[in-house]
Amino acid sequence: MQSREEVNPNKVMKSVDRALAVLRYFTVAEPELGLADVTRRSGLDKATVHRILTALARNGLLEQMPATRKYRLGPESLRLAQVREASVPITAILAPVLAQLSTDSGETAHASLGASEGMLTIGVSEPQRSTRVFVDPSASLPFHASASGQVFCAFADAEQGEAILQATRFEQFTETTPVDARDLRQRVDAARQNGFAVAHGTLEADTVGVAAPFFDASGRVIGAVAVAGLSSRMDGEAIARAGALVCAAAKQVTRQLGGRSGA
Amino acid sequence: MQSREEVNPNKVMKSVDRALAVLRYFTVAEPELGLADVTRRSGLDKATVHRILTALARNGLLEQMPATRKYRLGPESLRLAQVREASVPITAILAPVLAQLSTDSGETAHASLGASEGMLTIGVSEPQRSTRVFVDPSASLPFHASASGQVFCAFADAEQGEAILQATRFEQFTETTPVDARDLRQRVDAARQNGFAVAHGTLEADTVGVAAPFFDASGRVIGAVAVAGLSSRMDGEAIARAGALVCAAAKQVTRQLGGRSGA
Repeated sequence: MQSREEVNPNKVMKSVDRALAVLRYFTVAEPELGLADVTRRSGLDKATVHRILTALARNGLLEQMPATRKYRLGPESLRLAQVREASVPITAILAPVLAQLSTDSGETAHASLGASEGMLTIGVSEPQRSTRVFVDPSASLPFHASASGQVFCAFADAEQGEAILQATRFEQFTETTPVDARDLRQRVDAARQNGFAVAHGTLEADTVGVAAPFFDASGRVIGAVAVAGLSSRMDGEAIARAGALVCAAAKQVTRQLGGRSGA
Repeated sequence: MQSREEVNPNKVMKSVDRALAVLRYFTVAEPELGLADVTRRSGLDKATVHRILTALARNGLLEQMPATRKYRLGPESLRLAQVREASVPITAILAPVLAQLSTDSGETAHASLGASEGMLTIGVSEPQRSTRVFVDPSASLPFHASASGQVFCAFADAEQGEAILQATRFEQFTETTPVDARDLRQRVDAARQNGFAVAHGTLEADTVGVAAPFFDASGRVIGAVAVAGLSSRMDGEAIARAGALVCAAAKQVTRQLGGRSGA
């Protein structure tokens, strides 16, 4: 069964990584991309990109629209989500919790799962008011610059938390984004002590994020529930109230997932 | 930008195909698989499978559970589905249509999208009665052996329909599964004339499937809405009624997708 392309496994896996990375270019903001878009974005040559797009389409993860020749995510993505949801019914569990949380806090509620590159947003519920924070449902939140990421690091096991810290490039989004490991470690320590994280405009100016962790059945942290509000109305009292609300919401999610707190 | 692994692009793409094929092993019936399961299933050597699983996990498409070392689909699958749904809100459109269809027909209603390997189920609604047909929400229906597949072929453009016919291996599921291209062509022709397909136990004995196609904005067929009922109560009258219901439901889906019939 050993065949020639296994001779250099690193190269082979690099090609798989490249193909899978292309899937991440597709977002709610940019759901359709052409060959030229992906080529520019990836820095790969056009022939390679064409082969990747064709392979992804052949496997149903992308589909090409005949009229524009552009690609969008394919039906296989819906099947994968259905299988995931059948085994870990997390989006079904989160939807009502987030709806309640945005109602109670008067701000945007969102939830994310820890992934290799950051916190993957998997649910958003916006409040019924004229000004609100927009959270892109297909974006991933950087660990260092979001309350969700900080609280995830705070409750990750020591090894995982250290790995995230080491991998962080400290991209600077605003004036208050943590700039180094020491800065981040302090915030992470505070989040661990409080049970929730508060981030003042670290990802986007004029917003405040407040986040609490939820856990799986083995006590491992898997994600965070958060409120993102406009700084102008998030005073001390509003932040404390949001902290209590996200902690209660995260506990509810943990319980419904059959999880238990690692602490 | 040309690097060494592009020297033999076929081999490189074979590795991408292999990695993506592993995702299809995960189903609602088998949401968790270990290294040994995937190795056995794929026929690849263990080291290669381990590298594939690691690459898929690194990219968030799988996640490994610490306690059992088994893998399940990862959070990236939820993000992909969200992006897809934001651009083509098909599951949101289908849910109420299928609920109504199962109520009106008294049988299981389901919908699927045409993909390379068959019809990918993307929605199921079961009737409130003690006996019903179970449709696995993560299964794909073979083109030749399902009413959905047959009606998809019937309304596909000539080239696509021919490609499906050529690729069909005519796996025999029951005594009435079409056994060759001639048999299938007759059923496909009948479906085209009627506007819907009827399959008597071709995939599972004692069930009858009735399916109608829906279309995208370019008039291309993209999927099918179907009713799957117990043969014992699907007499001529029930089949005709199901035919009218699936045609109406499929038209409604087409309209809500901003699509138009190709005819």
